[in-house]
Amino acid sequence: MSDETYTHETWLSPLSWRYGTPPMRALWSEAHKRRLWRRIWVALAETQAEVGLVKPEQVEDLRAHQDEVDIVEAHRREAELHHDLMAEVHTYAAQCGIGGGIIHLGATSMDVEDNADAMRLRDALDLLRVQLRQVCGALAVRVREEASTTAMAFTHLQPAEPTTVGYRLAQHGQDLLVDLEDLDRLRDELKGKGFKGAVGTCASYGQLLEGTGWTPAQLEAGVMGRLDLPAFEAATQTAPRKQEYRILSGIASLGQTLYKLAADLRLLQSPPLGEWAEPFGKKQIGSSAMPFKRNPIVAENMDSQARHLAALPRVAWDNAAHSYLERTLDDSANRRSVLAEACLIADDLLKRALRLVRDGTVVHVAVARNLEAYGPFAASERVLMQTARRGADRQEMHEVIREGSLTAWAAIQDGSPNPLADTLASDDRVLAWATADEVHGWMDASDYVGDAPERAVRIADALAAAGEAA
Amino acid sequence: MSDETYTHETWLSPLSWRYGTPPMRALWSEAHKRRLWRRIWVALAETQAEVGLVKPEQVEDLRAHQDEVDIVEAHRREAELHHDLMAEVHTYAAQCGIGGGIIHLGATSMDVEDNADAMRLRDALDLLRVQLRQVCGALAVRVREEASTTAMAFTHLQPAEPTTVGYRLAQHGQDLLVDLEDLDRLRDELKGKGFKGAVGTCASYGQLLEGTGWTPAQLEAGVMGRLDLPAFEAATQTAPRKQEYRILSGIASLGQTLYKLAADLRLLQSPPLGEWAEPFGKKQIGSSAMPFKRNPIVAENMDSQARHLAALPRVAWDNAAHSYLERTLDDSANRRSVLAEACLIADDLLKRALRLVRDGTVVHVAVARNLEAYGPFAASERVLMQTARRGADRQEMHEVIREGSLTAWAAIQDGSPNPLADTLASDDRVLAWATADEVHGWMDASDYVGDAPERAVRIADALAAAGEAA
Amino acid sequence: MSDETYTHETWLSPLSWRYGTPPMRALWSEAHKRRLWRRIWVALAETQAEVGLVKPEQVEDLRAHQDEVDIVEAHRREAELHHDLMAEVHTYAAQCGIGGGIIHLGATSMDVEDNADAMRLRDALDLLRVQLRQVCGALAVRVREEASTTAMAFTHLQPAEPTTVGYRLAQHGQDLLVDLEDLDRLRDELKGKGFKGAVGTCASYGQLLEGTGWTPAQLEAGVMGRLDLPAFEAATQTAPRKQEYRILSGIASLGQTLYKLAADLRLLQSPPLGEWAEPFGKKQIGSSAMPFKRNPIVAENMDSQARHLAALPRVAWDNAAHSYLERTLDDSANRRSVLAEACLIADDLLKRALRLVRDGTVVHVAVARNLEAYGPFAASERVLMQTARRGADRQEMHEVIREGSLTAWAAIQDGSPNPLADTLASDDRVLAWATADEVHGWMDASDYVGDAPERAVRIADALAAAGEAA
Amino acid sequence: MSDETYTHETWLSPLSWRYGTPPMRALWSEAHKRRLWRRIWVALAETQAEVGLVKPEQVEDLRAHQDEVDIVEAHRREAELHHDLMAEVHTYAAQCGIGGGIIHLGATSMDVEDNADAMRLRDALDLLRVQLRQVCGALAVRVREEASTTAMAFTHLQPAEPTTVGYRLAQHGQDLLVDLEDLDRLRDELKGKGFKGAVGTCASYGQLLEGTGWTPAQLEAGVMGRLDLPAFEAATQTAPRKQEYRILSGIASLGQTLYKLAADLRLLQSPPLGEWAEPFGKKQIGSSAMPFKRNPIVAENMDSQARHLAALPRVAWDNAAHSYLERTLDDSANRRSVLAEACLIADDLLKRALRLVRDGTVVHVAVARNLEAYGPFAASERVLMQTARRGADRQEMHEVIREGSLTAWAAIQDGSPNPLADTLASDDRVLAWATADEVHGWMDASDYVGDAPERAVRIADALAAAGEAA
Repeated sequence: MSDETYTHETWLSPLSWRYGTPPMRALWSEAHKRRLWRRIWVALAETQAEVGLVKPEQVEDLRAHQDEVDIVEAHRREAELHHDLMAEVHTYAAQCGIGGGIIHLGATSMDVEDNADAMRLRDALDLLRVQLRQVCGALAVRVREEASTTAMAFTHLQPAEPTTVGYRLAQHGQDLLVDLEDLDRLRDELKGKGFKGAVGTCASYGQLLEGTGWTPAQLEAGVMGRLDLPAFEAATQTAPRKQEYRILSGIASLGQTLYKLAADLRLLQSPPLGEWAEPFGKKQIGSSAMPFKRNPIVAENMDSQARHLAALPRVAWDNAAHSYLERTLDDSANRRSVLAEACLIADDLLKRALRLVRDGTVVHVAVARNLEAYGPFAASERVLMQTARRGADRQEMHEVIREGSLTAWAAIQDGSPNPLADTLASDDRVLAWATADEVHGWMDASDYVGDAPERAVRIADALAAAGEAA
Repeated sequence: MSDETYTHETWLSPLSWRYGTPPMRALWSEAHKRRLWRRIWVALAETQAEVGLVKPEQVEDLRAHQDEVDIVEAHRREAELHHDLMAEVHTYAAQCGIGGGIIHLGATSMDVEDNADAMRLRDALDLLRVQLRQVCGALAVRVREEASTTAMAFTHLQPAEPTTVGYRLAQHGQDLLVDLEDLDRLRDELKGKGFKGAVGTCASYGQLLEGTGWTPAQLEAGVMGRLDLPAFEAATQTAPRKQEYRILSGIASLGQTLYKLAADLRLLQSPPLGEWAEPFGKKQIGSSAMPFKRNPIVAENMDSQARHLAALPRVAWDNAAHSYLERTLDDSANRRSVLAEACLIADDLLKRALRLVRDGTVVHVAVARNLEAYGPFAASERVLMQTARRGADRQEMHEVIREGSLTAWAAIQDGSPNPLADTLASDDRVLAWATADEVHGWMDASDYVGDAPERAVRIADALAAAGEAA
Repeated sequence: MSDETYTHETWLSPLSWRYGTPPMRALWSEAHKRRLWRRIWVALAETQAEVGLVKPEQVEDLRAHQDEVDIVEAHRREAELHHDLMAEVHTYAAQCGIGGGIIHLGATSMDVEDNADAMRLRDALDLLRVQLRQVCGALAVRVREEASTTAMAFTHLQPAEPTTVGYRLAQHGQDLLVDLEDLDRLRDELKGKGFKGAVGTCASYGQLLEGTGWTPAQLEAGVMGRLDLPAFEAATQTAPRKQEYRILSGIASLGQTLYKLAADLRLLQSPPLGEWAEPFGKKQIGSSAMPFKRNPIVAENMDSQARHLAALPRVAWDNAAHSYLERTLDDSANRRSVLAEACLIADDLLKRALRLVRDGTVVHVAVARNLEAYGPFAASERVLMQTARRGADRQEMHEVIREGSLTAWAAIQDGSPNPLADTLASDDRVLAWATADEVHGWMDASDYVGDAPERAVRIADALAAAGEAA
Repeated sequence: MSDETYTHETWLSPLSWRYGTPPMRALWSEAHKRRLWRRIWVALAETQAEVGLVKPEQVEDLRAHQDEVDIVEAHRREAELHHDLMAEVHTYAAQCGIGGGIIHLGATSMDVEDNADAMRLRDALDLLRVQLRQVCGALAVRVREEASTTAMAFTHLQPAEPTTVGYRLAQHGQDLLVDLEDLDRLRDELKGKGFKGAVGTCASYGQLLEGTGWTPAQLEAGVMGRLDLPAFEAATQTAPRKQEYRILSGIASLGQTLYKLAADLRLLQSPPLGEWAEPFGKKQIGSSAMPFKRNPIVAENMDSQARHLAALPRVAWDNAAHSYLERTLDDSANRRSVLAEACLIADDLLKRALRLVRDGTVVHVAVARNLEAYGPFAASERVLMQTARRGADRQEMHEVIREGSLTAWAAIQDGSPNPLADTLASDDRVLAWATADEVHGWMDASDYVGDAPERAVRIADALAAAGEAA
């Protein structure tokens, strides 16, 4: 750890330099963590000054040196002490000639670390929620634009009936709104350990406060109020680790929405479908053989990272499940990785999702081509129904359509246009009940989308509202 | 599938016969699923009768045969059709001479199946919530009983400072209350697909309703109202699969609480600790060599099953993430297993947890033994503080205690009682500042539990309130 | 558990009736497990008779009743004893008037159960290996048939360069051969606990054998020889649980191959690609609107189940990791589910894979259509290279091709045939260096497949060899 | 990415600075990756020079600049090109005035990247295997030392019968030897993609080699020979991703062994058991209240990280399962994290395991204490058997022992020594058949360990052999 700078001669997580955003990386940095620790020590000292346990000038001294984190020195001390928080106490104390002695007074390490971690998770959720609202806002625009653009819907990856491009996008939007509600709630419910000492009983604070007229709960309320963080009623050495499982599951649930969004857009970018195009840089290298080809690398990257994210809640489950009795330390090492990684991956996913949604292109010509190719099959139902209403023999009409459909399908497999509308509009058995124009009208699938446009608009409204709050 | 009865000559999931409870098993049975399908078909027909699309006597006929599920016949038909829902339609229709023809009118399979699955999940959550409230109620009793019973707390599996037995149990209770809130909310928010047709646009219903003055949304509202199930605004062929990930994560979170509860109680049942004992049957075989020994098999079983449960949310994540475009069918087969398994495992865990919490025994003699052995180390801090207040040299006192502690630790390792209180109460350097009685008083760790008793009682109150609602 | 038959009024795992095959289900049945237990007791008694500890007629009596498993009776006894193996001992003993008293002599439960479980896993691997070899054999045929059928290859789901249908299938074959090697090896290395008593030390056997001249290791060798199962050198109460993690990982690895196989075939069945068709039953219901449409339900089902399988190795990892000291029982309950489920899912996957591979159809017309649409882009490289060799200006030719490609791409997006070959073969700048026929020859991508055909054939040979051993 | 140095003001994975070893970190660095890429380009050029496609002086030029990786410049170019490998080609080419133009001739990106990744995995396995052998060697010593040290064995965390400390450690050793075999085999079987071009057909190489008399397979053999890496017979754009799932599962299996080792040693360090002590630094801060207390932080850290490792194979499974057709890019982003993390975590685990095994202490006084407390229960079986042999009434003796055991158990719960041996050796009903000395002899459990010592020694021998090869 000599000079504490790192280069590409050592392994660096891609989340440190390639994926994720600077604010989220800074939030999970060692330096920021230590600044939070110091902020907590100051809040503790301020409250203890109110009680009369420490002097105002001591608190003042702590405040004066609050931002002077010196990681090199702290790590030097940790190499001896094998205890990172105590190393920070010593480092900080050495900077504070007047107040150094009162840092961490009556506290146990986890009173500081665990609250700081809760604050980091809270702030990380805040960063994610802002980005998520931006994605919602951007998606609202696209859903509205395309609310009535008819496109073939696919089930089993097979053309089915028509839908609209906007309604399809609205499905993702509906899921994102659920994610936003979940993250909002998780953020609002988030609690810290509070100040409860080594095993969560507040015994050490009780002793410290003997004769002051203060209870441990009052001291706790004072400090937590300064940190604007509610505390759990009960804790062991730490806050319940269940909270982290719930938060990581919520973040992974957002990751699931974004995975599906990206996966759908990857499929739609496949040229045989071809209905979507990613934004693409000017000098970006695609394929040398097909320079106009656009590999869906933004969406592929999202699926790759989302898949990693999906594996992380389980680690938090294990940490919560196996923290025996008043706490074992088998959570500590992996939390340094997985909490940050989950937040950074989600951070990166949202950044890419915004780009994908805002700057991607609906390829209307391909949308129309697919609708023409596959729409008539669904639409032929209307020919059946309308001619039947006029008295046609249902069985005969069914057979007409069936024959025409088989021929049409073979034509499509061969790469030809779908002849079904023409076939039906020129079949005497059909023309006995309707004009060719009527048949062509019924065979146009473009309005066979039920109330998808209205539903899409309603979701767009909700997305826009979420986006405005960003 | 010849005669559709199964014996132990074939593999039967232990959840069919060994674990889980009959009501939860019945809820996830094929027969019940088909009864729900029929209930949905009846609700659809009732609404369509209101619209005027079908006749009251047809609806009446469907209602009359609603419960006559015949799985053997349905499976016979499915073997030909390769489509389980259509096989049930045919089976049901064959039973309904008058109304058979209108079953499933205008609907797509998933309008029936997917709403039925939402109803199963809703009812399963209801079963779990009742059981969870019972566990809360039972735990409330134990937390209150032991709110002030001092016991050694362990961090790192090492004796630390005292806590109380009730406060320790209250931690589990606090987690259970979070789980209950989560399950309550998931249940309240649970939605069905509604009636939206093959790709979610309601197009087929629109056509069906042409000229009736009804909109698809009104039809949907009518049917869903009859089923008492809200519908998602948007859907593809199915409701968003995200819902199942969120529900399974919530159930797995409950599984995590119960895993930790069981794991802690397994440790506490280990004779070197020995503070807890599971309920034990009269003729139950323990160890032949140590007939009084009690293997913690209830708690071990819970950890085993909870671990299985922890693996299941990931399957639901995958289903949601990979349901491409308007739906692919790669969710279907595994949902037959994992939704039921998750609910059945949780069902079994709660059943065992209730037994463990309600009928388990706190072994007070062992609690006291451990407190005597390890409590004095923590309590010696008070000797330091009190003598220092009276003017003793802090350094000297620290050394006295350190020496005494080392000797005491060695005694304990050897299996002897902790001599530290006696040592200090007979050391002249200590007796210069306090009487032997005073020292013995300080060295009694039993009241060194801060406000743990009050916090335990507050959580017990919340648990009792939750339990009363059961 | 009254009469021990089960119907669809209770939850039955789909693996009991819908998925999986009868032999694999029978292998994991309770009845078979108990027959294995009895077989082990007989083998133990036979060896003990050799030692002189029990009498031949006692062994004979055990052998006579070996197959009379009576689960109803055994479960009745278990309800009292809370110990399933001891319940079976009592049940068996009640059937054996002469030998009943010597059943399980000197043994601990896990000497019987754990070896039986190893035998079940071994036999399950044998069932899987036979099926896997059949899939290899069937795939060999298809790879050979299509070794030289040129098709467009897709990277990023974008058309890239040509490959061959057979070479594409050979990739799956190459992975299956790795899986087969892994399963063969896991089967060959599979070991049982042996006969080592309650904590693995053989102490009880040592005492039993006192004065007989036999060592516990010799007794163990005698019994395990009769069971044809090697034993681990060391064991605790059980064999190391690591073995099950390794086996489940191996099975999940097979599941991964089959997942990708099915996923690829699902994509290829999507009509815009359309290069593959699943086998389809005569009366099977597809879509009513498009009766000729073929939903890839076999392949979708495979992906669904494989995804479930992928979650199971983790449970085995946990069982192995958390089996504390000489064994805790937190593996037992979930092993009843996950070992069987992993084998049954793999069993079902292989059954479907065989059908998919053997009876699926390559839609050559679609293969050709896609090659025509996208092949020219890759082939245009040859025009560049060949004209450059003859002295053409590389930059100019590159521009000619670029322009033509852009126009061609737009045509394809519009649903028209790819005009690139014609464009180049009629461009004067190209015709200055080559005849139109030469250009058309170069633009035919169908032989631009390198050595894919030969590599495909070599893998087909290996697959055929594996298949012949089935 | 401005200046490409990183400090603790940004998030740095703990595996970059806190966990893992410098050689493993260097192996996974960007710089090393690029040096491998260049090494591959040189090997390609060397072979192409042999073919006559490029000139010796061009190859010489490439070799001369092979180590001049300039990441800042490469990243600058990548920001424009959005393609990291092409950016490196440009950077390298700019350094090579003579040979720059032939870098990457005929190759596709994945011909370079994918082989480089295989080489990194191979080298990482080599690093792990050396460390694993060291752990085996260290464990051999401890197993031998304690092969005959009798200790209480625990099943269900309950004292059972005796075992030996060495035999207990040998279980871990037996598992490590399996892991070593697995890693050895995975390393030996490891293959690269070879040089097969964009979709794995070698088509581009075929064209390049036209007229040279070389086949693509020969070119491939030449380059791979220079890299000492076998190639897969078939590949798509990449080598089969299954390989990485198998390797990560193998590494996670090692992680499982080390998890259990650490978990057992954490339990044994719990003072109520107290049989093991971790190595501890001179100034290391333990508990202030109990300075002699030793928190098992090395072992806790191992369990924490191993749990993270256990989640990673699943990501590799997904990458392999979802790499559609000739490859999709949804593996790329997460592979940058998970391959390195899996290797670095295993690297760290082995480092800590070595310390734990080599420098940890068996606390013999506690081993003896536990044996005294719990051993007599198991040993009392011998009193029963021996007196029965001499003619005592088995029922009566059983009752004597049962009564004594109950009293003894109560004494232990109370913290007193186990009185059972004395009780039996002074009971007239026993003394009717044996002397008090005989009874005391039988009640000594210390030799009731079967053949555990011999088995332990045999495993120690195998471990030592593995260790010597390190």
